[in-house]
Amino acid sequence: MNNNNEEKLHNIRHSLSHILAIAILLKYPTAKLAIGPAINNGFYYDFDFEGGEIPSVEDLKEIQKTMRKLAGKGLEFSGKEITESTAKEMFAEQPYKLELIEEFASAGKTLTAYTSGDFTDLCKGGHTDNTKEIDTKAFKLTHIAGAYWRGDEKNKMLTRIYGLAFESKEKLDEYLQTQEEAKKRDHRKIGKELGLFAFSELIGSGLPLFTPKGTMVRDLIVERIQKLQEKFGFQKVWIPHITKKELYETSGHWEKFGDELFKVKGKQDAEFVMKPMNCPHHTQIYASSPKSYRDLPVRFVETTTNYRDEQAGELLGLTRVRSLTQDDGHVFCTLEQTKEEVKNIVSVIRDFYTSLNMFKSGDYWVSLSVRDISKMEKYLGDEDNWNKAEEILEEVAKEEKLEYKKVEGEAAFYGPKLDFMFKDALGREWQLATIQLDFVMPKRFELTYKDKDGSEQTPVMIHRAIAGSLERFMGVMIEHFAGAFPTWLSPVQVWVMPIGENHKEYAGEVFEKLKENNIRAEFHDENESLGKKIRDSKMQKIPYFLVIGDEEISSKQIMVESRDDGKIGEMTTDSFVELIEKQCCI
Amino acid sequence: MNNNNEEKLHNIRHSLSHILAIAILLKYPTAKLAIGPAINNGFYYDFDFEGGEIPSVEDLKEIQKTMRKLAGKGLEFSGKEITESTAKEMFAEQPYKLELIEEFASAGKTLTAYTSGDFTDLCKGGHTDNTKEIDTKAFKLTHIAGAYWRGDEKNKMLTRIYGLAFESKEKLDEYLQTQEEAKKRDHRKIGKELGLFAFSELIGSGLPLFTPKGTMVRDLIVERIQKLQEKFGFQKVWIPHITKKELYETSGHWEKFGDELFKVKGKQDAEFVMKPMNCPHHTQIYASSPKSYRDLPVRFVETTTNYRDEQAGELLGLTRVRSLTQDDGHVFCTLEQTKEEVKNIVSVIRDFYTSLNMFKSGDYWVSLSVRDISKMEKYLGDEDNWNKAEEILEEVAKEEKLEYKKVEGEAAFYGPKLDFMFKDALGREWQLATIQLDFVMPKRFELTYKDKDGSEQTPVMIHRAIAGSLERFMGVMIEHFAGAFPTWLSPVQVWVMPIGENHKEYAGEVFEKLKENNIRAEFHDENESLGKKIRDSKMQKIPYFLVIGDEEISSKQIMVESRDDGKIGEMTTDSFVELIEKQCCI
Repeated sequence: MNNNNEEKLHNIRHSLSHILAIAILLKYPTAKLAIGPAINNGFYYDFDFEGGEIPSVEDLKEIQKTMRKLAGKGLEFSGKEITESTAKEMFAEQPYKLELIEEFASAGKTLTAYTSGDFTDLCKGGHTDNTKEIDTKAFKLTHIAGAYWRGDEKNKMLTRIYGLAFESKEKLDEYLQTQEEAKKRDHRKIGKELGLFAFSELIGSGLPLFTPKGTMVRDLIVERIQKLQEKFGFQKVWIPHITKKELYETSGHWEKFGDELFKVKGKQDAEFVMKPMNCPHHTQIYASSPKSYRDLPVRFVETTTNYRDEQAGELLGLTRVRSLTQDDGHVFCTLEQTKEEVKNIVSVIRDFYTSLNMFKSGDYWVSLSVRDISKMEKYLGDEDNWNKAEEILEEVAKEEKLEYKKVEGEAAFYGPKLDFMFKDALGREWQLATIQLDFVMPKRFELTYKDKDGSEQTPVMIHRAIAGSLERFMGVMIEHFAGAFPTWLSPVQVWVMPIGENHKEYAGEVFEKLKENNIRAEFHDENESLGKKIRDSKMQKIPYFLVIGDEEISSKQIMVESRDDGKIGEMTTDSFVELIEKQCCI
Repeated sequence: MNNNNEEKLHNIRHSLSHILAIAILLKYPTAKLAIGPAINNGFYYDFDFEGGEIPSVEDLKEIQKTMRKLAGKGLEFSGKEITESTAKEMFAEQPYKLELIEEFASAGKTLTAYTSGDFTDLCKGGHTDNTKEIDTKAFKLTHIAGAYWRGDEKNKMLTRIYGLAFESKEKLDEYLQTQEEAKKRDHRKIGKELGLFAFSELIGSGLPLFTPKGTMVRDLIVERIQKLQEKFGFQKVWIPHITKKELYETSGHWEKFGDELFKVKGKQDAEFVMKPMNCPHHTQIYASSPKSYRDLPVRFVETTTNYRDEQAGELLGLTRVRSLTQDDGHVFCTLEQTKEEVKNIVSVIRDFYTSLNMFKSGDYWVSLSVRDISKMEKYLGDEDNWNKAEEILEEVAKEEKLEYKKVEGEAAFYGPKLDFMFKDALGREWQLATIQLDFVMPKRFELTYKDKDGSEQTPVMIHRAIAGSLERFMGVMIEHFAGAFPTWLSPVQVWVMPIGENHKEYAGEVFEKLKENNIRAEFHDENESLGKKIRDSKMQKIPYFLVIGDEEISSKQIMVESRDDGKIGEMTTDSFVELIEKQCCI
């Protein structure tokens, strides 16, 4: 969507919040108005019904009808600047508006009021010229929720009414359908159905536990990435989860993020913090022995859990947690080696997301995140290095034929980045992989290597993550695949089901053969109907199931049915093993 | 050593502490005496020189000479009970003895005094009859250290003089030699030489970082254990490192160990503790879905780091750390399944320690740790279950032909254990593996399974660790092998060294072939003398090295030299790969 359309849509949504206020005042004349902004799928308005009747979900239909009528009338919006005293007079009956007027005025802001029909709101503008521009079939009131005035729980709880609004009914329907689909794909729901992870009241929110199946998925992700990057010389290291705060004072994180960290206190003088990232720890492994140019590049990888003090209210399943396990990695190299190293990491990212069928033209893009040259004071480090680094990343993006866009102002304070954005099955965009150049941290930790000429030099540091946080990645993948992971990522790949008692032996042989070949198979000889078992295997999104009966015994073959392609025919167990191995090999 | 000999040795050591006191008083007549016990390699005595001259290390020789003379005189020890008032009179000049007399008397203890020659000490006895029984060549004063009176840092710092003492000069020499060897094998020294781990001032003491090589050793240990137990149906799970304290209130650990835990505090109301063990977390994965008898046994394993608030002064390299990574595991099963499960775990322990050549008769023993029947109030849980459990463990010990000893009073409060003790190369004993039965935790967490008859039953829980803490295990293994790990555990298995420029190509081919076969090889073509490289490879304890020259190129073979067996002959690269694989297969 271009900027023009975006602005138009914003104006429609904002206008609707005014119309919602008019409709509410018609039915509840004493309601006090708080604020009513446009949001990314529509609008809301916060009201204070002051102990009087509050609209029910049932009432929303009637209010919506009123809104449609109002919009159909072709109300015009007109705004004007007003003085503080005029404003206070106009909104004398509206305590929330008065509070805002006070505040805006004392901050020296201009006050504006917008009128449509008989209704005037304190508002900085951004409406349609006429409500005729609003498609009255393209909006919908959806729900009512409590919301503290100004988001502060010390304030009064108000009543927030939400509405969806789009340019057209088609767009609204599309959105509703996507929402419906998203609900079905909700990773919390599917995670429970497939038994991948769990939460415990005794342990706390934002701290998922992974069952054997969920742990298998985590391990498969990590193993694949590790296999892909092995040939590039990445080596695993290990660090503890806590550190003295001195580490972050040196790195500069303490000053920036000190408040966000979990503090750890022992019974004596011991005081630590839980690590929210791994780069400072990894610098200390680099620094633990002297390095020469011959040792570079040094490439560390580690899958390790970071802890971040997220607000309880913001936690959401696996996508927003307090324990984030990163597939983290850091390369220390010379400036000359940087390009080759970045290319290698791009290759790992490409191979990994290709195995998920997500690295397809149009389904991904790369943000070449560079400086905002109007705000150079935000960035640390040498100008020449920055120029060189941005150049290297752009060269890589071109040579690797990445679909990239230069995005100004998105660089980290320590260097430019390549951020990889992927679209999921619902068209939602997720930033997953990243490659970041860093000239600052090596200096701060006084990392060096002895160059050919005997001089002490500072290495460049490359930060990289392929999946990002395993928890978030799993949440995204569960929703993207609706739980039907590709065969290589499925914790259970095959169900083997004998039809009757006399088929158990042969079915058992098939099962054993699969296990011997490291195929993740389950044997289902429970005393239940075959129909139920097949339904269960489909519910569990198992990629393949084998029903073993008389025919299979006499042919010494197996009939293979696939979750995605239905019956794919009779074959020998060996051929089936091959079929699966082909999907899993790297 | 039998109990008789042990008592005799204790008496010699204790007698020597008296003789030390006599010798000190001869030279420092105003010294005040605190306490002087026997310890596990000799004895010590704490003195207060009250601001006067304190003996120097130089003085120890003279004091030792005096002691030898005194012992040679054939002093006899005779003891008698004394009343509080007599005692106070006898030790009027000795304030520390007076404090002890007060305390013992008010606790209703009998006071005894032992006299040898002119010297009388407040003492509960345990001496040789005559100092002639002491071999005057078999003891040695070793060092002087500060020690707070009664170990409390609020008290005065006293001067402690340490001595070694054994039955004979041979035993003393043997001990001194072992100490010398232990110093050479110190895992902190070897760990640094081999580049396995490091500490950082910025991160903190007791928090080791593992380099790529050290991480490789950790991973090899974990992978081997995982491979060995796979066939028994152990499945990996994953838990976060923090939890609400409610988890430990339920488990009962809070009450017992609450003070020992690291507390975690966020900026809001979030309060957590770092986990010091994993069993309570694992119960929550068990509890996350309903279980039937068909699901049992459920077997969880996880290699995960625990955090314990150890005193800074007690931290020691890898053997005493704040971050302990456990190869932990828990089985949930019926009482009937317990024996089989314990046997399976014994089999994993046997196979694992056999691969380290440590599961040999005489080099290990198993403590069947049972209740102390005189203190039954210490143990929780049902009497019948306890009897059954102790019986099961003893049956397993017998059937598996373990070299076991029943040790009363060593059971955990929740159930009996099999603790596996291993002797290292210096004859020191380490408790490494353990299998523990537990009837308490499943009840406390209300874990259940639905039995065949539809009734809700409580499963038995088995705790098990094979290596224990990976950090401590690595520390022990480094010292046991003096860094020369078996081939399967060596982070680098082979060095490939071309002699000259024109041997690099063929050497490179050999190296590539080894890498292709997953052999952990390093290529050393540095511009250094072959002699230095060979010395380096030996210093690095590399199991094999290959020197590639003209002969190798013409024969298309390689000359294999082994760290342990010297030149073992020419062979093809394929045969060498086989040779290594044979040592690594499981």
